Parts: sequence; structure tokens; C-alpha cells
Amino acid sequence: MSGQFNDWMKASLAEFEVHLTNLLPTVDTIPAHLHEAMRYAALDGGKRVRPLLAFAAGRLFNAPSELLTRAAAALEMIHAYSLVHDDMPCMDDDALRRGKPTVHIQYNEATALLVGDALQAQAFLVLAEGDASAERKLPMLQLLARAAGSIGMCGGQAIDLASVGLALNLAELEQMHRLKTGALLSASVLLGAMSGKNLSTEEVAALNSYADAIGLAFQVVDDVLDATADSATLGKTAGKDAADNKPTYVSLLGLEASKTLAEKLRNDAHDALLPFGEKAQHLRDLADLIVQRKA
Amino acid sequence: MSGQFNDWMKASLAEFEVHLTNLLPTVDTIPAHLHEAMRYAALDGGKRVRPLLAFAAGRLFNAPSELLTRAAAALEMIHAYSLVHDDMPCMDDDALRRGKPTVHIQYNEATALLVGDALQAQAFLVLAEGDASAERKLPMLQLLARAAGSIGMCGGQAIDLASVGLALNLAELEQMHRLKTGALLSASVLLGAMSGKNLSTEEVAALNSYADAIGLAFQVVDDVLDATADSATLGKTAGKDAADNKPTYVSLLGLEASKTLAEKLRNDAHDALLPFGEKAQHLRDLADLIVQRKA
Repeated sequence: MSGQFNDWMKASLAEFEVHLTNLLPTVDTIPAHLHEAMRYAALDGGKRVRPLLAFAAGRLFNAPSELLTRAAAALEMIHAYSLVHDDMPCMDDDALRRGKPTVHIQYNEATALLVGDALQAQAFLVLAEGDASAERKLPMLQLLARAAGSIGMCGGQAIDLASVGLALNLAELEQMHRLKTGALLSASVLLGAMSGKNLSTEEVAALNSYADAIGLAFQVVDDVLDATADSATLGKTAGKDAADNKPTYVSLLGLEASKTLAEKLRNDAHDALLPFGEKAQHLRDLADLIVQRKA
Repeated sequence: MSGQFNDWMKASLAEFEVHLTNLLPTVDTIPAHLHEAMRYAALDGGKRVRPLLAFAAGRLFNAPSELLTRAAAALEMIHAYSLVHDDMPCMDDDALRRGKPTVHIQYNEATALLVGDALQAQAFLVLAEGDASAERKLPMLQLLARAAGSIGMCGGQAIDLASVGLALNLAELEQMHRLKTGALLSASVLLGAMSGKNLSTEEVAALNSYADAIGLAFQVVDDVLDATADSATLGKTAGKDAADNKPTYVSLLGLEASKTLAEKLRNDAHDALLPFGEKAQHLRDLADLIVQRKA
């Protein structure tokens, strides 16, 4: 990864944080307590992988920054809501997230439920509003709704829930992650690109191949880190999947084979980007970052 | 209420049930368990007040039935998801809804959480898809997102939660209900009308007056019924608000004054519809129905 990529990433994230702050309801707006908790859940934390993917994909087709920023904020709000709900006692029952107490610990369960619900609505609102044309935004809204819903992220969660304690094979584990985290990561790449232009079938296919590869790589690396890093480094409870008896790549393949798989997926991601040439450099760099990250 | 109105209502609801069934994911689609639970939550029950309001408002401007049906389904999915989440133990902790066990009782809490989340995404999806133009649908999606989110329904829930055990005055109680149930009822009327044409400022104002009146009337009657009817008639637990020490119109105004207020609000609703003449007859009939209902 080049210094230019690091500079771009730092600048993009700093600018994004300002926009995300402005696209959430202020604490001066009634109900202040809910808005404070929504901001607690969405701001000051997280790796912002989905926004970065959207920004990097937006460069392929010179996407206008206003729409790109709204798409990135919508994706991050969907992601943030899913974390708030996942952490609740009836799901993963986790007390630590992004190095802070989870929302139901900091506030209470009912507030966590409403924060997640309201963040989802806010995601669709920020993508539906703004300067871009209705024709440009409507397919993006459809894609986001599909990626977030029962045949996307929520569906993956449901499969994950149903799989606790079961002996999933590798194909079943992959299908679960393809929905649970892959759908929204794919949507991030596609929404970034769609902010710039209507995509051809070939472009959608190439970007989906890239997104599939990094989506799985992301999960494989997550499992490796969960098995090898500590909670302080991760900003969340380490070793939780093993403790919960959840199937992981590490439990199915072993540690070394998991690391090899992550490397193979990184190469797949690079290959998928060949048609886009130089303009895809930041997407390549992000694939590298996802595989090499330590938290 | 005329026989013609009753016939229209019966026919509209029968047709709507078929469409709603088709606009939800099938149980043949993975994850089957989640889709079964979504259908359990949204089908076979409920008064379908929001769809009826949308259909009645659609008649004002000859709205095309495909878009109108999608708007009605989206509204009902948002409503259904809110009931699933409201009934959960961390919120109202209710075991009975629409005469059936609530979703977290029939399935489990985690499933109830995901059913609500997925129904919200599905609502935005069904409104974003379909035949109508992007220009027509985009403002409708914005309105739905605002009505569902933190300055609408979720915001009202948050105020409701924060008010348990507090001595709300009438103005505070009204503000809470204006968000908690009023926002989505207003959206139902407006989305129905917007399915037909772009509304003028005067038309929006008149329809908002109507919606405000029936929204409050709906709540006043709910409180009257909660204090006077039994659980079997209501299809949900009666007397729950009083038991939970929640402020209600009946607790603040008394039973008789609450009934008088409901009548006044019905008249306000009728007055607001004057500009629309004969075409608003079903909206008038619905105001009557809301005030006269027994469950």
C-alpha cells in the first residue's frame, strides 16, 4: 500500500466523519435522547470499511461526491444499526464494541432496539434525499434495500442464528457469510460505482466478483483475528465465536489454511479488477488492507 | 357508513391481502424460517387501517392501483415491524397480538428482532420497485423514511418509553402520539394521494389536517377501548396501559370527555376534507369507522 493510498484514506475518512455527523439528526432535535444514542452508535468508531469501498469504487466512474457521500453514510448507518441489534442480549449478548460499551449497556435494551430501527430508516432517508436525480437514486435504493433485508444481511443473521451449535460445512458457512456481511460489502462497491453511472452487466459482474472475494476474505480474516488477537486490539470481545461454539473458518480449516485462503481471495479480488485498470488502484489497496489488517 | 363503503372496504382488503402475500418473500426462499416468521407477523390479521387510508386517499386523484398497492404494502410492513418490536420483552412485553401469540412468543426474541428489521427493509424495497416512475416514487420514499424514523414513529416510541411513570400533560401526550402513531397514519393518507399526482401545498395541508385529526382520534379511541373492552374483543391484552402506569387520554380527561374529544376530532377530519368534495367520501367514512370501532 502506497503513501498516496494512506493519504487518500485518511483524508476521505476525516471528510466522511464530518458528513456522517451532519447526516444524523442533531441532539437538539426531539427526541434528544434517541438522537444522542443514534450518534453514539454511529460516530467515533469503526473501520468505515463500507464507506471506503464506496469511495474507492466511486473513483472508477468519477462519481459526484455529494451522492457518493450519501451512499457511504447510508451504508454505514445500516452497518451500525446491525451491530447495535447484533450486540443485544437476545442475539450475541456483547458488552463491548468499537472499544466502547455497546448501546444496550450504555443506555438500555429498548433504546438499543429503537436506535437500530431509526438508523435503518435514516439510511434510506439520506440516500433518498439530496441533489442527484431520481433516476440515479432509485436503483441504488432498491439495491440497498435488497442488501439490507431478508435475502441479504438480515437473512444472513437468521442463518447464523440457526447455525449455532450445528456442524456447518464450508459451503454452508460461506453462504451464511455471503449474506450476513457479503451482501452489504457488495452493495458498498456497487453503490459507489452506481453513484457515477448506470453500470453495464459486465461491470456489475466484475465488481460482484471483487466484492465476493473481499467479502469472504474479510470474514476469514475476522475469524483468524478472533482466534489470535486480544479484546483490547479488536475493540470487541475476542474468542467469542469459539466460546459460543459458532462455526468459523479457523475451526473448519485450521489457522494456516485460513491464512492461505485469505491470500488466495486477495488475488481473486485483484484479478476481478483487471478490466478497470489504474482507476481501480484504491479498490486493490483496500483488498490488501482487508487481508493485512490486525483488528 | 353506506353499504357501498362497506363493499368497497371488503373488496379492497381482500385484494390487498393477495398483493401483500405476493410482496413478501416466499417460504421457499432461503432463509425459509425468517420468511415464514415475516409472513406470520404481517399476514392474517390487523385492521389494515393504513392501507385503507392510502386506498381512500388514492381515489382523490385516480392513483394507479399498482403503485397504490405497493405504498399500502410498504405502510403495512412498517406498521407490522413496529408491532413485532414493540411487543418484545424489552419494550411492552406483550404475548398476544391480533389474537395470536406475538412473534417472540411464537418463535423467539432473536427471530422477532430480525423479522422487524427485515420487514422494514422489505417496506422500502416494495415501494422502490414496480412500474411507476422514479420521479413519482422518490418523494414517496423520502416521506416514508421520515415517517418511520427518529422524527416519526421511532421518535414517538422513544418519547413513549421515556414517559412511563411520568405525569405527561395533554400537550405532551398529544405530541408523543403525533409521532408514535400519527406520523405513519399521515404518511398513509399522503402516500395514497401522492400515488396519483404531485400534491400542491394546499392539498398537503388539507390532508395533513385530516390525518392529524384521525390520528389523534385513533389514539383517543384506543385508550377508551383499552379501558372498556376485553382482551378477546381487542385481540390484544386489555387494560395494559393502566397496569403499566402509562398516561392515556382516559387517565387525563376521564372516559366521557375522551369520547367527546373523539367526536370533535371526527368533525375536524370531515371539515378538512371539504376542498375535495365527493371524491373524499371514503376518507370521511374511514374517519367515522375509526371513531366508531369496537376493537
